[in-house]
Amino acid sequence: MKWAGWGREDVVFSHEDKPGLGPFLRKAVGIDVRRPVAPAPAFAGLDIPSSRLPAELRDALEAVLGAARVSTEARDRLLHARGKSLPDLVRHRRGDLGRIPDVVVRPTSEEEIAAVLRLVLEADAVLIPFGGGTNISGSLEAMEDEVRPIVSLDLARLDRVLEIDETSRLATVQAGVFGPALEAQLAARGWTLGHFPDSFTHSTLGGWIATRSSGMQSDKYGDVADFTRGLRAVTPGGVLAIRPVPSTSTGPSVREMMLGSEGRLGIVTQATVHVHRVPEQRVILGYLLPTWAISLDVMREIAASEATPSVTRVSDPAETVFSFATRKTPTLLDRVKSRALQALLRHRRVDPEQMCLAFIGYEGTPRHVAGERRLVEAVVKEHGGVALGRGPGELYDQKKFDTPYIRVFLLEHGALADVSETSAPWSALPALYDGAMGAARGAFARLGVHGYVMCHLSHSYHAGACLYFTFAFGAAGVEDELAAYRTVKSAVQQSFLDAGGTLSHHHAVGTEHAPWLEQDISPAGVAMVRALLAGIDPGRNLNPAKIVDAPAPAEVAGPMAPFGAPDG
Amino acid sequence: MKWAGWGREDVVFSHEDKPGLGPFLRKAVGIDVRRPVAPAPAFAGLDIPSSRLPAELRDALEAVLGAARVSTEARDRLLHARGKSLPDLVRHRRGDLGRIPDVVVRPTSEEEIAAVLRLVLEADAVLIPFGGGTNISGSLEAMEDEVRPIVSLDLARLDRVLEIDETSRLATVQAGVFGPALEAQLAARGWTLGHFPDSFTHSTLGGWIATRSSGMQSDKYGDVADFTRGLRAVTPGGVLAIRPVPSTSTGPSVREMMLGSEGRLGIVTQATVHVHRVPEQRVILGYLLPTWAISLDVMREIAASEATPSVTRVSDPAETVFSFATRKTPTLLDRVKSRALQALLRHRRVDPEQMCLAFIGYEGTPRHVAGERRLVEAVVKEHGGVALGRGPGELYDQKKFDTPYIRVFLLEHGALADVSETSAPWSALPALYDGAMGAARGAFARLGVHGYVMCHLSHSYHAGACLYFTFAFGAAGVEDELAAYRTVKSAVQQSFLDAGGTLSHHHAVGTEHAPWLEQDISPAGVAMVRALLAGIDPGRNLNPAKIVDAPAPAEVAGPMAPFGAPDG
Repeated sequence: MKWAGWGREDVVFSHEDKPGLGPFLRKAVGIDVRRPVAPAPAFAGLDIPSSRLPAELRDALEAVLGAARVSTEARDRLLHARGKSLPDLVRHRRGDLGRIPDVVVRPTSEEEIAAVLRLVLEADAVLIPFGGGTNISGSLEAMEDEVRPIVSLDLARLDRVLEIDETSRLATVQAGVFGPALEAQLAARGWTLGHFPDSFTHSTLGGWIATRSSGMQSDKYGDVADFTRGLRAVTPGGVLAIRPVPSTSTGPSVREMMLGSEGRLGIVTQATVHVHRVPEQRVILGYLLPTWAISLDVMREIAASEATPSVTRVSDPAETVFSFATRKTPTLLDRVKSRALQALLRHRRVDPEQMCLAFIGYEGTPRHVAGERRLVEAVVKEHGGVALGRGPGELYDQKKFDTPYIRVFLLEHGALADVSETSAPWSALPALYDGAMGAARGAFARLGVHGYVMCHLSHSYHAGACLYFTFAFGAAGVEDELAAYRTVKSAVQQSFLDAGGTLSHHHAVGTEHAPWLEQDISPAGVAMVRALLAGIDPGRNLNPAKIVDAPAPAEVAGPMAPFGAPDG
Repeated sequence: MKWAGWGREDVVFSHEDKPGLGPFLRKAVGIDVRRPVAPAPAFAGLDIPSSRLPAELRDALEAVLGAARVSTEARDRLLHARGKSLPDLVRHRRGDLGRIPDVVVRPTSEEEIAAVLRLVLEADAVLIPFGGGTNISGSLEAMEDEVRPIVSLDLARLDRVLEIDETSRLATVQAGVFGPALEAQLAARGWTLGHFPDSFTHSTLGGWIATRSSGMQSDKYGDVADFTRGLRAVTPGGVLAIRPVPSTSTGPSVREMMLGSEGRLGIVTQATVHVHRVPEQRVILGYLLPTWAISLDVMREIAASEATPSVTRVSDPAETVFSFATRKTPTLLDRVKSRALQALLRHRRVDPEQMCLAFIGYEGTPRHVAGERRLVEAVVKEHGGVALGRGPGELYDQKKFDTPYIRVFLLEHGALADVSETSAPWSALPALYDGAMGAARGAFARLGVHGYVMCHLSHSYHAGACLYFTFAFGAAGVEDELAAYRTVKSAVQQSFLDAGGTLSHHHAVGTEHAPWLEQDISPAGVAMVRALLAGIDPGRNLNPAKIVDAPAPAEVAGPMAPFGAPDG
């Protein structure tokens, strides 16, 4: 894994096979893709703080795990220090490394994890569980002023599917398994979990649970809260064991306390999750819809219809333009299709400046897929949409996990990019969208930067949807990149709350989103979370200061600052 | 409402229009329906403890609510003292009234509720919220030894649908509204919530939320945890306001803490819930399936299919016999149909002793209903089932809310009856069923009583189902009716836990199910619930001793008692 970027060392994003990208980025954020301006610094040049692990704690950890699974090696500790948010990458690349863990431990069993937790509590140390390290909300980073020893607990060796209950369609899986290894183990027996977040290749089941993850096909397979029925976790009060029952009436839900708990209540060791037979047919089809307002209507009407597609995604015009700009060199066939498409668009009076690219997924028997398509396409057609067939969907399917790489490419070429996503009732979405776009553009204007903001609807529900915004701006002339980033991010976040949305649909609270928690779930709600955390972890040894109790970053305005106030 | 029975004073269950019932009950539980043996005692003969409400608290409550909405009237207090479990009814009818509330207050707004809570906390009194009063798990009863003043807060005046967001298909509804009034207000604008628990006519939205209710059509409309998106509650930390967002990533779920909280965290004042357009077609069809084992297979295969019926219910042979015994006098047409049915059953080799009566519901457009039927009936036919058409389903639909009345009829004729339900993975259900039936019959044998136990599958999920058991036994010769009841109830409950099930699918924990909570969610899970409750309500003023911390009833064996040990 790259210490200052995304994903595997051997995967590099390039503009060279995407002829539209250079012109697009020049226009959108004012950068030149041919000229890297900020390459990753050399690892050798970093000044990595040495480990403060007390000898007694090291000895005790080694007695439990063996010396080979207790690491104080500098690069190992650095790789476990943060997630992959833009501030994480910027600070790492600046050499501003913060308070990195003193030791990385690699247990292989629940018993070893319980022993590690006991040692941590006895030593009054801090324990931070680590899955894939892709969190973008600050959930993994220790507080700058933490004086106690910091233990990063890497779960990657708990990587097996333990059991598949084929009758109940439930799999019991260790928490440290990465997405691809999990799907491979399930596929070997004809099953799938169907959970495909953007981070899929580099994130783990335990991380998904600890942050309330959603995947691209959650419309069908459910968010992590839907498919996680049972779980086990090592907590200060002993091993928590929640039975994988389909529904229960046992008071305030402990299962739903562990979901999204970001290591503050304990370490999830395994979970029992819904699995599905690999469907007979699986297809993602592309559509063009005339405008964003119509796109929201189409998705809402599909959600209210008798169709239950596996994917409902539609990009706004700005993201549609971006999608076309990242296409690889078109073949002759593409160009022919494209001419036919242009004619069709003219015929249907779709304005290319306003049009929105949608992907809708269907899974099941051919008869089911055909029935779903009939229902969905009746809605699409009624609203003047155009079906594009399988081509765009297959393209989307192939490159769906590549998106995070482009952010590092942008960073190296002088642009800062990140994401914010929310969910809200259908009735709130048009104003929420306008508010967020306006907030980002207002922040760009205040900063005097060349910026771009775009959005897609990524998940549909009965009563609303997730809107997922990506913002980017050229950093040329910006004095403090982090302060500029926070100006934009804060403006977008505040616009969500002002419009009735939530602070995050599936990226957790961490420290980045914590300033908006009171506005989201009200002070009385924060008091409940705080009561729970304080009761279970009175010494604040478990990933302290995440979700609640984080000091606000200096650059962020207080949570009650009026929307639009200059806060950079 | 009856103080010693179920439902409206003017509704009485009678055997006279059900010719099969008398012979059935004589055989099943050894009672004579023509001879009531235990009529309800006269209200006038009760010795109702006088109110211990301190004058200062009364004055303060009256200052907030006005004297008319602060009642210390004896019957009013008695009606708010307990729910409708068998022990509740038996003790009320014995004149064993327990620690009844000292005052019943009837606020009309969130502000008044907040004022009442402040007064209660200042006076170190106890507050118990009251919706419809139909809880059967002991959630409403104050502890026998409670020395502080007890305030019952009746929410019935918060009975309005405040808003319907037609775009988002969300209704914001006050918590005290009863089922029929809620559906009437929604239906006036073409909407339905679709939540129909057995208690529907006598229970409230707030009660459903506080106890994690499910309804007969929850397969389609969802359990209360699914359809309750937002809520407001008065808590000691202020007014909790959870936004009605479709999905969110805000840490441990406060929404899911309030669900099932039984008044221990505060008083739910309103909720924003999913609503649906009244479907074009709605039909419940009856089927006969050859055996119980096959019935479980059929329901599991339907759950794994592409069909999504609104109701999936199947009775075991014992409950099927009971259902036929409660039919009203058959018409000539019925008898003709019945002869044809007998011939069909012979032809399909369905053994009348083993057959199981199923109801499956379909809703939507005619095309959708037809498609669903095709999918379901392919499964039914493959397993040798027989379609009965609409007759039984319509009958079921008409009498679905009458079932609770029969329990009081039995009580007055010398038999004790109650229910226990659970959920578990599909793979666990056959053994769970055998275990529960064996546990009930073993308890009957130990007690030397004439007993009957029957079961139906009431809800299907991806990974499992709810099994709902009803047990009854003749009380002739039983020395202590409550002790005998607990012997049976405890044996059934313990069998659920032993077989991997949960202590309750939709009837809450209260005090009745609390002895099994540690076995269900593990001691570490109970510690989390306890930490939450202690943090929010350190003075134990909010419905104390429910869910956790209840003293075990003397008749109940400890939670770790081995299954089957004599405990009566």
